[in-house]
Amino acid sequence: MAARLTSKKRGYRWVEIEKMLARGEVRGKLTRDDLPTPALLLDLDAFSFNVAKMVRHCKDRHLALRPHGKSHKCPEIAKALVRAGAAGACTAKISEAEVFAADGVPGLLVTTAVIGKHKIERAVRLAKRSPDTMFVVDDAHNVRDLNDAARAARITLNVVVDLHVGKKTGIQPCLPALGLVRLVTSLPNLRFAGIQAYAGQASHVVGFAERKKVSREALRPALETRWLFEKNGIQCPMLTGASTGTYNIDSGIQGITELQPGSFIFMDIDYNRIGSRNGAVYTDFRNSLSVLTTVVSKPSIALAIIDAGYKAFATDRPFVPEAKGIEGVVYSWGGDEHGRLDLTKSSAEVNLGDRLEFIVPHCDPSVNLYDRIYCLRGDNVEAVWTIAARGMSQ
Amino acid sequence: MAARLTSKKRGYRWVEIEKMLARGEVRGKLTRDDLPTPALLLDLDAFSFNVAKMVRHCKDRHLALRPHGKSHKCPEIAKALVRAGAAGACTAKISEAEVFAADGVPGLLVTTAVIGKHKIERAVRLAKRSPDTMFVVDDAHNVRDLNDAARAARITLNVVVDLHVGKKTGIQPCLPALGLVRLVTSLPNLRFAGIQAYAGQASHVVGFAERKKVSREALRPALETRWLFEKNGIQCPMLTGASTGTYNIDSGIQGITELQPGSFIFMDIDYNRIGSRNGAVYTDFRNSLSVLTTVVSKPSIALAIIDAGYKAFATDRPFVPEAKGIEGVVYSWGGDEHGRLDLTKSSAEVNLGDRLEFIVPHCDPSVNLYDRIYCLRGDNVEAVWTIAARGMSQ
Repeated sequence: MAARLTSKKRGYRWVEIEKMLARGEVRGKLTRDDLPTPALLLDLDAFSFNVAKMVRHCKDRHLALRPHGKSHKCPEIAKALVRAGAAGACTAKISEAEVFAADGVPGLLVTTAVIGKHKIERAVRLAKRSPDTMFVVDDAHNVRDLNDAARAARITLNVVVDLHVGKKTGIQPCLPALGLVRLVTSLPNLRFAGIQAYAGQASHVVGFAERKKVSREALRPALETRWLFEKNGIQCPMLTGASTGTYNIDSGIQGITELQPGSFIFMDIDYNRIGSRNGAVYTDFRNSLSVLTTVVSKPSIALAIIDAGYKAFATDRPFVPEAKGIEGVVYSWGGDEHGRLDLTKSSAEVNLGDRLEFIVPHCDPSVNLYDRIYCLRGDNVEAVWTIAARGMSQ
Repeated sequence: MAARLTSKKRGYRWVEIEKMLARGEVRGKLTRDDLPTPALLLDLDAFSFNVAKMVRHCKDRHLALRPHGKSHKCPEIAKALVRAGAAGACTAKISEAEVFAADGVPGLLVTTAVIGKHKIERAVRLAKRSPDTMFVVDDAHNVRDLNDAARAARITLNVVVDLHVGKKTGIQPCLPALGLVRLVTSLPNLRFAGIQAYAGQASHVVGFAERKKVSREALRPALETRWLFEKNGIQCPMLTGASTGTYNIDSGIQGITELQPGSFIFMDIDYNRIGSRNGAVYTDFRNSLSVLTTVVSKPSIALAIIDAGYKAFATDRPFVPEAKGIEGVVYSWGGDEHGRLDLTKSSAEVNLGDRLEFIVPHCDPSVNLYDRIYCLRGDNVEAVWTIAARGMSQ
């Protein structure tokens, strides 16, 4: 029988657990069974494996690693990555960067342009506090606005030219980008720090060969742009890009200087199925992230209802959560608050009050639903980390 | 030309706005243009219209109204509804109820069973603080556990029998439910408060006639169960159910005593399209909820990128956000952080830095992504309410 989650119960009352959580005194005390569900769990052994593997991959290839913080939104995780060898952290938005900087995360790169006078004001304030922070740009007006704000504050801002090599942000590569970088280098309060070329459309292509093809095609204009810059006398200290899906594709491209993958620390169902260099399942990294749930209703023999629906798992992909440690349990959505488990083919009985763990369909937006992540070794809670930048989409 | 959002700019600096937001001093000072995007907005005029209409509907039919707090997770909104005439608030989970109770919301009904010793401990603590709170039950063991915990705390818990008339939680109607209610009434520390019959599968059926059919069929066993209880000498003080989609269907059913709709205060794209009693569009309530966004990149003439993706709009339905106040702008998902706007048929120019408002596909899980909701009359920010129970899915 597949083991369900039945670690030794130590018999705490809820008020005691609440106090331990409030004080952060959990190590050696709490186990998985003590956690209120739905709860976001991190398997520390799998997490450490993932971090070490990516760090080693980059080190061996003389590439910098600046993992994307939009995946975890957790300063503790960003700092753990830096301790392991990362150059810093990417953040999607300025508000996310503010949270990371306030908690001492160095080497920030804000990967969406900072638009509008208020956000520029925030960028300047952040750069004063953390002068190594980099900001992407893709528009001439915005570049001038940034320079004006930096001049007024008597600082220099590090800017990275964001290229449109995907389906989202960025200036067109080659000549338009050359025009923009010439403007950047002509302005006294900006420092050109490099190129960002993020091809999100390649990340989830199923099959290694096809994914490689898509990523190579997407990045060719970035390499041409870099060449064009240098031909015109503009040194390009950095070319940053890549995702968990393309980390071992893009790292082989001459000219790329750093990788910014995010999901590899956690993994999810979407990434599991894209295939690796050697097989149909993507096993380069381990599933470290899960959601712990409880069966809260058992309306019939083959139907169990758990306390985790759209508010516990983000659902922008055509996948459903997958149960860990028990075979044949099929999840289907039961609205915002609940999940329905079809038990017809379950390898074990599932009863009211049972606690089941699920791998999430898509890690980044799921993590963004939680205020904390419970870090486990085996059944023991080693730490509780605050997802301090949760909701920081501004 | 469709007006985009260009209210009078008062020229505050961000540090000033930050202070006003921190102190809650926004009225008469801030306008929509001052808000950091993505921002969740509430149109107070539309909200008030919706509240007044539902309150009047219930009052005219001598029905209680206990709006579901899972939609808004905001104590200020729960209290506004009570001031307008609601009997209290439903909450999906115990942690949501704790937040509401702490902020003084009366008449709580927790609509998912409280399972496991820790959550039962929390239910007892909550009932001590707010003795009118009701808890649903659908299992005999759980009923005994609740009674034991209530006895130990020397209190009486109000319990509501949850019937399986939908696809989610609840005990089977009629004889199984009769067995459970007999157990409830036999136990000294429980008080039988009524029946919950929530048929979520009826809420979003397109077409009034078909929706009516589905809801009537789903609720028939609930009416039979009520009749069976009373035939067996068990008075049933309450029969609660209904959603925004069925409020004017279920309120016509003899035996229903109260409605628990949630989304009517906000509305969303999913509800707009289900049709009303009189037409193909559901116009009973107004769209009061939206997300304010900013164009952060303009990679080409007909493509604008806004700062709002899966982390700004929840996306469990096959709909995309719809732009307000501008015609022909077509949103498509651009990942977690961004949205792509196809401008080919746009009725107006859309430029970098422009701010656009969007109706959300599904209100409940979208609200759950934000920490605060900005309340507007016209362009003016009247209040900022904390979504204090955001993330409270436990």
